[in-house]
Amino acid sequence: MKRGGQLRSEWVIAVQGKVVPRGIDMINPKIKTGDIELEVHALHILSKAKTTPFSISDEHVLVNEELRLKYRYLDMRRGEITHRLVTRHQLMLAVRIFMDEQGFTEVMTPILAKSTPEGARDYLVPSRTNPGSFFALPQSPQIFKQILMIGGLDRYFQIASCFRDEDLRADRQPEFTQIDMEMSFATEEDLFPIIEALVVQIFKTCKGISLSSPFEKISYRDAVEKYGTDKPDLRFGMPLVRIDDLALQSHFSVFLEQIRGGGIVKGICVKGGGDLSRKKIDEYTALVRRLGAEGLAWFKMEEEGAVSSIGKFFDPPLLKKIAEKMEAVHGDLLFFVAASEKITNQALDHLRRTLAKERHLIHPDLYAWAWITDFPLFQWERETGTYASEHHPFTSPHMEDLPLLDTDPLQVRSSSYDLVLNGYEIGSGSQRIHSSELQEKIFHILKLSDDDIKKRFGFFIEALQYGTPPHLGIALGLDRLVMILTQAEGIRDVIAFPKTQKATDLMLEAPSEVEKKQLKELNIQAYL
Amino acid sequence: MKRGGQLRSEWVIAVQGKVVPRGIDMINPKIKTGDIELEVHALHILSKAKTTPFSISDEHVLVNEELRLKYRYLDMRRGEITHRLVTRHQLMLAVRIFMDEQGFTEVMTPILAKSTPEGARDYLVPSRTNPGSFFALPQSPQIFKQILMIGGLDRYFQIASCFRDEDLRADRQPEFTQIDMEMSFATEEDLFPIIEALVVQIFKTCKGISLSSPFEKISYRDAVEKYGTDKPDLRFGMPLVRIDDLALQSHFSVFLEQIRGGGIVKGICVKGGGDLSRKKIDEYTALVRRLGAEGLAWFKMEEEGAVSSIGKFFDPPLLKKIAEKMEAVHGDLLFFVAASEKITNQALDHLRRTLAKERHLIHPDLYAWAWITDFPLFQWERETGTYASEHHPFTSPHMEDLPLLDTDPLQVRSSSYDLVLNGYEIGSGSQRIHSSELQEKIFHILKLSDDDIKKRFGFFIEALQYGTPPHLGIALGLDRLVMILTQAEGIRDVIAFPKTQKATDLMLEAPSEVEKKQLKELNIQAYL
Repeated sequence: MKRGGQLRSEWVIAVQGKVVPRGIDMINPKIKTGDIELEVHALHILSKAKTTPFSISDEHVLVNEELRLKYRYLDMRRGEITHRLVTRHQLMLAVRIFMDEQGFTEVMTPILAKSTPEGARDYLVPSRTNPGSFFALPQSPQIFKQILMIGGLDRYFQIASCFRDEDLRADRQPEFTQIDMEMSFATEEDLFPIIEALVVQIFKTCKGISLSSPFEKISYRDAVEKYGTDKPDLRFGMPLVRIDDLALQSHFSVFLEQIRGGGIVKGICVKGGGDLSRKKIDEYTALVRRLGAEGLAWFKMEEEGAVSSIGKFFDPPLLKKIAEKMEAVHGDLLFFVAASEKITNQALDHLRRTLAKERHLIHPDLYAWAWITDFPLFQWERETGTYASEHHPFTSPHMEDLPLLDTDPLQVRSSSYDLVLNGYEIGSGSQRIHSSELQEKIFHILKLSDDDIKKRFGFFIEALQYGTPPHLGIALGLDRLVMILTQAEGIRDVIAFPKTQKATDLMLEAPSEVEKKQLKELNIQAYL
Repeated sequence: MKRGGQLRSEWVIAVQGKVVPRGIDMINPKIKTGDIELEVHALHILSKAKTTPFSISDEHVLVNEELRLKYRYLDMRRGEITHRLVTRHQLMLAVRIFMDEQGFTEVMTPILAKSTPEGARDYLVPSRTNPGSFFALPQSPQIFKQILMIGGLDRYFQIASCFRDEDLRADRQPEFTQIDMEMSFATEEDLFPIIEALVVQIFKTCKGISLSSPFEKISYRDAVEKYGTDKPDLRFGMPLVRIDDLALQSHFSVFLEQIRGGGIVKGICVKGGGDLSRKKIDEYTALVRRLGAEGLAWFKMEEEGAVSSIGKFFDPPLLKKIAEKMEAVHGDLLFFVAASEKITNQALDHLRRTLAKERHLIHPDLYAWAWITDFPLFQWERETGTYASEHHPFTSPHMEDLPLLDTDPLQVRSSSYDLVLNGYEIGSGSQRIHSSELQEKIFHILKLSDDDIKKRFGFFIEALQYGTPPHLGIALGLDRLVMILTQAEGIRDVIAFPKTQKATDLMLEAPSEVEKKQLKELNIQAYL
């Protein structure tokens, strides 16, 4: 056909014709429409296209990410982004239908809100009508959903846009989305089954997968003890085992000194790890050193017993006891780190996950969920010499730990919980404080001045005083969930128009300069 | 019971007990639980409450609106706001289920976006990481949804938060919500039935009402001619009738002068309006005068013919012709305005709606929908001496009017449409321009400089060049729809946490001052 020959890639055309079978020699089983063709009767060119800056193809192409972000619409034509956006859509709809069935009302809370201290920097919006004043974009709908409980709504949810002006780590976005919910007159025993049923529904809808529930519950202390982290990947074993008592029976000065200095000794058993080369072990040693440990001790379990360069510091019966405690058998390899509790846990957590990845211990179809509970209420901020909320300042302490608030705040457990999946934190929530006195007390422990409390939370403290039902809630990271469901590499891949790590939109060329007139109207001045 | 006696209003309690019938003399048919009572076995006080600043009651109370906004959570306890939020939730869910069934994908577009000229002032967000640069909150997802079409998504929708920093008229909010959608390879004939089925579904879900479709279609010109407005209330008749030709046959100098000066004469017939008192007529005269008309002519249709203080300027046969044209019979009253086309239409539109309200011509259960089509592409801005887009600059002109772009832009019709209901504009949309050349031409007619076009729309003009499918879309005002569905007085009543007319949140006390440190980090300075 003559006009057909003029067509170029990415032109938009309208065609009338008849679908006919392809000739035998033209059949292409590799494409969906490979056994038919169209006998064209009429052809209209709707839109021509100039040459695209990179080739559009369904195959994964190695195009510079910045170029793909600038031409997001062309990247979309490759199909992968669209597929993820469709999954995201299906997930959002499944959430909404499920939450509605459970009696939750979706309420849209304001984007033009107020600066609140949820741990990150606020995005501010200058007010034109109130010179010198600013709105803040919400870091979460936390205050609003608690206010809704005070207002008597009982069951709220929202798929909410949240904003944090942070220096972006690899997989953060200034604008992200959470599945946010709150309920009154309820406890974890009411909330957990709802959330479990919700994610079961999501996985069924989006992946056709049947998850089993209830999910495992692990206390924060147990999680850190056993996996070195509060977001353990439970798709494989290899728990961290503490051997302080046995280490003390050795003559290995590194272990002894660490323990005497307040540190600990923990190890992991790599099943069949006896095949690890010396080079690999050196790599892992470098890994734990980067994380602050001084070194990585190891023992190979051979027929004649444990073999190690530091073997001479351990009597054979002691080695046997260690092997027993680690459940190590012939062919396994043991790794040990001796350092402060924090460094030991971090190092072994990383090492454990690295080993699982490299040794293919993770079944790709496995989804390992767990609740991590009873986080500490506070953490100590060394820089400022103050307590900071581990979750957020509205989190209720454990009622039995209340007396510790005055004597040893760091020992106070909170009624909070994280939902983890495959080593990712998917959600975080808590029972909230519903007493204004307790809320004020917590603010004081956080060293917020009376003036600060009044300016930032005055209205909220007051609201708590008019009869607040006990309530609790949770927020799930929607972007992260979609990322896992679509096997995307990062949350950037599941957001239609993401920002770069420098918080810019390369397609829009935003942020951008604005007219002086605009700034003048807002009563602000920009200086460089 | 002793402890029961301590309880005060708004305390939160937990009670265990047995539900038993009330004694005959205690039955109260006015409340839902009026024939039962609870025999309390255990009572726990969960939360005390101090005295509320106004009384909580399901009855409508006349409390100062500012106080109710400050204590929004207490106002919520009255039940009315909650009821509206639940209807809003039901509507949003119904929209999402319906749009999904129709093959539309909900895509969340950025809130941190770029300044674009959609007719209103932008809310700006200073960028910390790009000093001197600003994001803008989107006035609508317009650019994004067109980009999605260019990206090949075909059918997009979103319940989208939009932002306009305007001086608020009575019923506007700085932050509002629209049901936004766009589709490729389609025309009005595809879109209208989808939108009609959508609102049918909404009314069925939220009100149990069966609307009939298709909706009436009226061209912009016809709507203005017949009702004096592009958002006519079609729940009642009383059309505007133009009588220039007949007016010219009278001796009434007011009519004659107006017509000779380029004005027009139009009237309405008030059925049975013969009963209107002289005082009422004076009121209506004052009304049209406030809208710019010089006066209001009237004729009462009595048995002997039309009676009027200006009757002497009209010969009886002429009066008969006028009555015939207005379809007036004995007992009716005719009103006439002679002025410029704009003033005449505005005055009679207001008068028509006022009369309908006062004379109870509107059945409360009636929902009168219509499409208003073929708006002019441009309007003339007298102040700036430039053309402005009637809809927005991405709206496609009628193809047959293209030549007029160069010769008489104000005569160019656009492929745009509004959806109106009971005198409210509920939605607005258009076929979009899918040619970069035509888009640039429109920008030039709008007197955007090449530099402006490049800075604000460069990426979009470029995107149009890579093969853009024909596409069209619409946005429906969600707040307005919920307002009508819940018989609320304004959109403030259907938003969980609304702003005042001065764009402040009285509950949050936002906008508020922020710390100097925050502004410094953003490289801005506020001056008063």
